[in-house]
Amino acid sequence: MVIISEENKVVTLINVFTVEPENQQKLVELLVEATEKTMKNVSGFVSANIHKSLDGERVVNYAQWRSREDFEAMVKNPEAQKHMKPIAQIAKADFHLYEVADTFELS
Amino acid sequence: MVIISEENKVVTLINVFTVEPENQQKLVELLVEATEKTMKNVSGFVSANIHKSLDGERVVNYAQWRSREDFEAMVKNPEAQKHMKPIAQIAKADFHLYEVADTFELS
Repeated sequence: MVIISEENKVVTLINVFTVEPENQQKLVELLVEATEKTMKNVSGFVSANIHKSLDGERVVNYAQWRSREDFEAMVKNPEAQKHMKPIAQIAKADFHLYEVADTFELS
Repeated sequence: MVIISEENKVVTLINVFTVEPENQQKLVELLVEATEKTMKNVSGFVSANIHKSLDGERVVNYAQWRSREDFEAMVKNPEAQKHMKPIAQIAKADFHLYEVADTFELS
């Protein structure tokens, strides 16, 4: 169970991929493969959560890392970079690191 | 506790706001106010999770609704629209509805 909370001691990566609808499922598969084969074994990995938009135009990876430093080390990891190449060929990524500012739930 | 899971019977709204860093905190406050005063009382609301990027350039609302129909009814709700106006004056929104395709956690 992946939990969103202001009290979680993680940094959140939200990576928004813009993709042609005909490539959306392929992109999901590449992200799943990258996560299973590489990311989840990288030091500092906490979670990855792959989302596909109902209109086919976006894929979002909502991911959690232990720290900004762990995330930045992963970006420079050659094995991780190998997975990013085919992804970059079919999608445009907009990624930023975030902190949780506030959360609300149905009471 | 907000939970991300493929088994959750919700539709996920991911709204990515592009904002000037000097307006980021104001945008967070407008979204918090909109959620507290209106959204959380709207039928079908499950959760809202406001994130601010460390670089100041983005705010993301990761929200869960009971169904697409509930979300679409909220968009047409005049009280909700009233909250959206000042937000649209300081930020550009890119929103899509999503399903959770896959989740991974540190084992």
